[in-house]
Amino acid sequence: MTQLRVHNLAVSIDGYATGEGQSFETPFGHAGQRLMGWFFPTHSFVSMTGHEDEAVGGGSRGVDDAFAAATNRGIGVEIMGRRKFGPQLGPWEDESWRGWWGEEPPFHSPVIVLTHHTRPDLAVGETTFLFRELAPVDALALATELAGGLDVRLGGGPTVVREFLEADLVDYLHVVVVPIVLGRGVRLWDGLEHLEERFDVEATASPSGVVHYVFTRTSR
Amino acid sequence: MTQLRVHNLAVSIDGYATGEGQSFETPFGHAGQRLMGWFFPTHSFVSMTGHEDEAVGGGSRGVDDAFAAATNRGIGVEIMGRRKFGPQLGPWEDESWRGWWGEEPPFHSPVIVLTHHTRPDLAVGETTFLFRELAPVDALALATELAGGLDVRLGGGPTVVREFLEADLVDYLHVVVVPIVLGRGVRLWDGLEHLEERFDVEATASPSGVVHYVFTRTSR
Repeated sequence: MTQLRVHNLAVSIDGYATGEGQSFETPFGHAGQRLMGWFFPTHSFVSMTGHEDEAVGGGSRGVDDAFAAATNRGIGVEIMGRRKFGPQLGPWEDESWRGWWGEEPPFHSPVIVLTHHTRPDLAVGETTFLFRELAPVDALALATELAGGLDVRLGGGPTVVREFLEADLVDYLHVVVVPIVLGRGVRLWDGLEHLEERFDVEATASPSGVVHYVFTRTSR
Repeated sequence: MTQLRVHNLAVSIDGYATGEGQSFETPFGHAGQRLMGWFFPTHSFVSMTGHEDEAVGGGSRGVDDAFAAATNRGIGVEIMGRRKFGPQLGPWEDESWRGWWGEEPPFHSPVIVLTHHTRPDLAVGETTFLFRELAPVDALALATELAGGLDVRLGGGPTVVREFLEADLVDYLHVVVVPIVLGRGVRLWDGLEHLEERFDVEATASPSGVVHYVFTRTSR
C-alpha cells in the first residue's frame, strides 16, 4: 500500500524548521545552512551534487547517510508546498520560473506543487510539476494515483508537513533535531498535541550531534 | 572551582518543561507524570523511595540511571524557585508549609529558595531552607559560599533555569527530551537563541525513548 513519507525534516532543538526572514538568498532565513549541516557531508548528498564519483564514493557513510539514503527509495511522486518550488508569493507574475533545480531536477517523477495560484503543468527534464489547489487528502489521492504503487514523499516545507500531520495522512516522519536554539521562525510542532499517540517513535543519536527521530504510524 | 549544574530537566519534543494548569495535585499540569516516566524505573529513583534495598538494587541500571545517578554527586547546595518549594503564590499566609518532602527532605544541605516573599530560615531534618530575594548572580554567590568547595545544583523549575541560562551562569545542563508533543505549558528554550555557542552539546539516545542532552560550558 502506498505510504506517505517525510524525510530529512530538520528542526532546531526549540522546534523551528526554518528561521525568520526567508528570501530568495536565504531560504532558511536567519537559520542559514545550520539546519542542514549534518546532511552536506553525507555520501548521499555528495554523490547527488555530482562532484564525486558515486562508484568510488565520497562523503560519510554513517547513520546520517543511512537516513539520507532512504529519501528517494521507492518514491513515485513528491508533494511539495509552493515555497519549496520558488520564492514568489501571490499570483504568478510570469511563468518563466522553472524551480530552483535547473534543467534536470532531482525528482524524476511527477511533483504536485500545492498552490492557490495554479498554472499549466511544467515538464523539466524527467520531472513534471503539477500546480494544484488541493486539500491534503485530495492531494494524496492524486499523488497515489500517479505513483503507480510506489510511495509518495511529502517534501515540505514545515507548514505543509504540519497540515498533513493534522489531517492524519503521514505514515513515516523522519525529523532531524539539530542542537541549536533558533529562537524564531516557523515551528513544526504547533497544533500537534498528542501526535505521539498515533506513532511509534524511535530516536537515534548521531556522532555528528543531531538526533534522528522516526515516527511510524501505528494504525490507519 | 564550584560549578552550577542542572540535572534531569525533562522537556517534551516541542520544548515544554511543564504543562498547562499546574496545581497542588498536578505539579506538571496536563503533562501529568509523562515528563518523568523515564526516571521512575531507574535504580536511582527506586532506591531513593526506600522501597527497595539499595545494596541489593532494584530498578534499571542503563543510561537513564547513569544520568540520574549523577544528580547528587558532589553537590553542596541547591538553588530552587519558590514553586518547587510549594504551590502557594504571593505573600505567605502562614509559615506552616515546610515543603513537599516531609521531615527528612532529600537535600541534606542548604537550599536557597528564590522568592519575592522572604520568611525566616527553616530547618527540616538535615536540610535548611533559606528564603531569599536575589538576582541569579547573587544567589549563585551565596550558594557558592555555602557549598564549601562543592558544586551547586540548580533545581528548577524551568523559569528559574532559563533566568540563570540568560545570565550565563550555568556550567552543566542535562536536559531529557521526551518524545511527546505537549502543545502548551512553560517553554524551556524561549529567549535563549544562540545558547549552543556557549556550550559543547552531546546527545545520547536511551532505549527508553528519551534523549539525554548534556550542555557543558566551553568557557567562562
